[in-house]
Amino acid sequence: MSSSLHLNISLLTPGHFRGSWRVAGNSPGDFVDPAHFRRLIRIAERGHLDAVFVGDSPALSGDIAHAPQLGLDPVVMLADAAAGTEHIGVIATGSSTYNDPYNLARRYLSLDHLTRGRAGWNVVTTQLPSASANFGYAEPPEKTERYRRADEFVEVVTALWNGWDTDAVVGDAASGRFADPGRIRGPRHHGEWFSVEGPLPLPRSPQGRPLLVQAGASEGGLALAGKYADLVFSAAQTVDVARTLREDIRARAAAHGRDPDRVKISTGLITVVGGTEEEARRREVELRETIPLEPALRQLAAQLGFDENALELDTVLRAGDLPQPASGAPRSAGFSASTHALLAEKPHTARELIHRFAGGAGHQLAVGTGEQIADRIEAWFRSGATDGFTIMPGEVGSGLEAFVEQVVPHLVARGLFRDEYTHRTLRGNLGLELAGTEDHADLDITVG
Amino acid sequence: MSSSLHLNISLLTPGHFRGSWRVAGNSPGDFVDPAHFRRLIRIAERGHLDAVFVGDSPALSGDIAHAPQLGLDPVVMLADAAAGTEHIGVIATGSSTYNDPYNLARRYLSLDHLTRGRAGWNVVTTQLPSASANFGYAEPPEKTERYRRADEFVEVVTALWNGWDTDAVVGDAASGRFADPGRIRGPRHHGEWFSVEGPLPLPRSPQGRPLLVQAGASEGGLALAGKYADLVFSAAQTVDVARTLREDIRARAAAHGRDPDRVKISTGLITVVGGTEEEARRREVELRETIPLEPALRQLAAQLGFDENALELDTVLRAGDLPQPASGAPRSAGFSASTHALLAEKPHTARELIHRFAGGAGHQLAVGTGEQIADRIEAWFRSGATDGFTIMPGEVGSGLEAFVEQVVPHLVARGLFRDEYTHRTLRGNLGLELAGTEDHADLDITVG
Repeated sequence: MSSSLHLNISLLTPGHFRGSWRVAGNSPGDFVDPAHFRRLIRIAERGHLDAVFVGDSPALSGDIAHAPQLGLDPVVMLADAAAGTEHIGVIATGSSTYNDPYNLARRYLSLDHLTRGRAGWNVVTTQLPSASANFGYAEPPEKTERYRRADEFVEVVTALWNGWDTDAVVGDAASGRFADPGRIRGPRHHGEWFSVEGPLPLPRSPQGRPLLVQAGASEGGLALAGKYADLVFSAAQTVDVARTLREDIRARAAAHGRDPDRVKISTGLITVVGGTEEEARRREVELRETIPLEPALRQLAAQLGFDENALELDTVLRAGDLPQPASGAPRSAGFSASTHALLAEKPHTARELIHRFAGGAGHQLAVGTGEQIADRIEAWFRSGATDGFTIMPGEVGSGLEAFVEQVVPHLVARGLFRDEYTHRTLRGNLGLELAGTEDHADLDITVG
Repeated sequence: MSSSLHLNISLLTPGHFRGSWRVAGNSPGDFVDPAHFRRLIRIAERGHLDAVFVGDSPALSGDIAHAPQLGLDPVVMLADAAAGTEHIGVIATGSSTYNDPYNLARRYLSLDHLTRGRAGWNVVTTQLPSASANFGYAEPPEKTERYRRADEFVEVVTALWNGWDTDAVVGDAASGRFADPGRIRGPRHHGEWFSVEGPLPLPRSPQGRPLLVQAGASEGGLALAGKYADLVFSAAQTVDVARTLREDIRARAAAHGRDPDRVKISTGLITVVGGTEEEARRREVELRETIPLEPALRQLAAQLGFDENALELDTVLRAGDLPQPASGAPRSAGFSASTHALLAEKPHTARELIHRFAGGAGHQLAVGTGEQIADRIEAWFRSGATDGFTIMPGEVGSGLEAFVEQVVPHLVARGLFRDEYTHRTLRGNLGLELAGTEDHADLDITVG
């Protein structure tokens, strides 16, 4: 199937419900335990998913006493976890605001070589205000400024990844000729934010270069996605919001002279799976009860653009109540649009929103049996709302396996999803051409 | 044995002879091949070595056509390679000039968690001029400036690693108490180079914090070593130079109120091992012949402080001929001192120096049978010249295994080296206390 459904799964630990380290199948030490991540990635590979996905902000944040946002460096963690795998892709989030392009390009290309062509970089600009104080900023840089920097950052990284022609390595032991210096070039970039001569000390990877993933739905994020992204990770609560977003991104890609089919959309989906609907509902209630409500309320208020003490748990919110987003405010445009659409359908109390959003973010929540969740995925996919989903288990310790064991088989049986890998690279499995072919007709990298 | 010999081995690929990708047992693609590094680290672990070591400069440099300096990001590569090991340490080089402290501290602490307490950071200031152009510098920063930055950088990184008390994670599922925020603190550092609030989103590792390794022999490097280093990687051509250096570093550590026995010195030793001395000599000649002489001559001249075209292959060099090092020049003080001592013993032609230095650096070269090389190691160790060696195989593809199979058994038979690991952490195997005990009497991390 050429336009097959694509499925990624988030390794966020303990899960999308931040307090879920308390429920069975999870342990408070999981977030630094290599055995935990190695186990999860192998289960995901057993389900033939396209990739595992790791979000990231370079800071300690959240409700530190009860549900902090913790985490190993995602590139380093995925290098360890992927060592025991052969097919599944690994997508690590990295900030263009709090990194430099040379080292970041090298790290991701290293991961791409070590996985033999299965790595992706999810570029984010990091809206978390506390991150800026770890990198010498008195205040977080403005959103428009972050996205201007991101655009130049991605341009430099891409140029570094493209610096070696596919035939640059000669490797002729008899003559001693290792490489052809004429086929290796640096970006020699001198721009507003960066001066980078290059080149990298690394040739192209087996998939040409790492996958470029983009995850923000603000104007700056969408512009970046249309210009560069191979895959867009998006938030949408309704089919209409998702379809509009997909069409927008495809149109933007086309405006840059790109083939819109070479940009895939992956919609976030929080899942709570049960053997029966009743069991899934019980599980959801159990997970909800781990949410520390007061911090979640302050977080929701801030995310919606209110003062952080403006809401009570029983405050009823309607679409018209939401403050207009101030430009440059540290808020997620995807979250705002998604919440607005949800409230336009039906008013919600703050408590209901917290539960629906699993205590944060703004992705849709699917609670039910494997078949019911497969129904939702099928309906969205067939309606043209998305090219696939990034599954965000409500709790990851048992929830990732539940998705693979109980949801995926229905999608396979319906002919929507693969039951074996057809390629060895991430670009191959996503149905994208190998990067480098557009510039270098002589690309000859074995795949499959 | 409390003051046992310690052995690390360098994974530099293709080996210390940069052209050695041409000889049997090596392949031009090794430097990006995960199977290559996984194989090497397992062999090193089989020999019960303390750690594998990876040098690094963030640039493409060297003789690109014949013997370029290439390489995967060392932290990412070692995360992959170490996934199949249980005891051996992993030491990755990282530049304090071309990184920021928050992200670097997080990456190394991540590697330390993933290896369950076996990671080390070799801090260098990166003298390679071409690196600076990848990070926005019109010219390389001056050496004194690099070391001022390094001092502050290490101070911030150490404070970040020490930010979580050992008992900061509570993990009480019943009450929902995950962590005690009162036992987690950021550096809140505002210095000349960096402003870093912290803390990291990661607790202490099983060895307390990563090992701190230092590798420069200039005044700035030695000052850094005395103040912070757990292990010093040094270059010395003679026992006297090595012993003087060791005593200097120990005195500097004592002046900072540190126990000198908690700073270990590891001397670089390039090895070419053969079943007979004749075979080893033949191997050495074979490796020498892979050195592209003209680029090596220019490199030697620059390293010694001459104009890069000042030397001919047959120029005879005496100790008095060497130019005085200009302050701030991009040269290695360890290399200069080491070369000076060598020439004071006996004049050498430029060609002889190139051969002796294996085409670069300035570490001593040992060519011979396993027993002969074990004799050299034993003599240096027993004379108090060093606490151990960082073995730098002439070519790594077969040379690393040759060292483990043919040299290590002699050292074990003489009671100088372990024949099984006694600890699971790198600090444990090096005979260092777990970091954190000095500040936190309640440290309770299981080792062994």
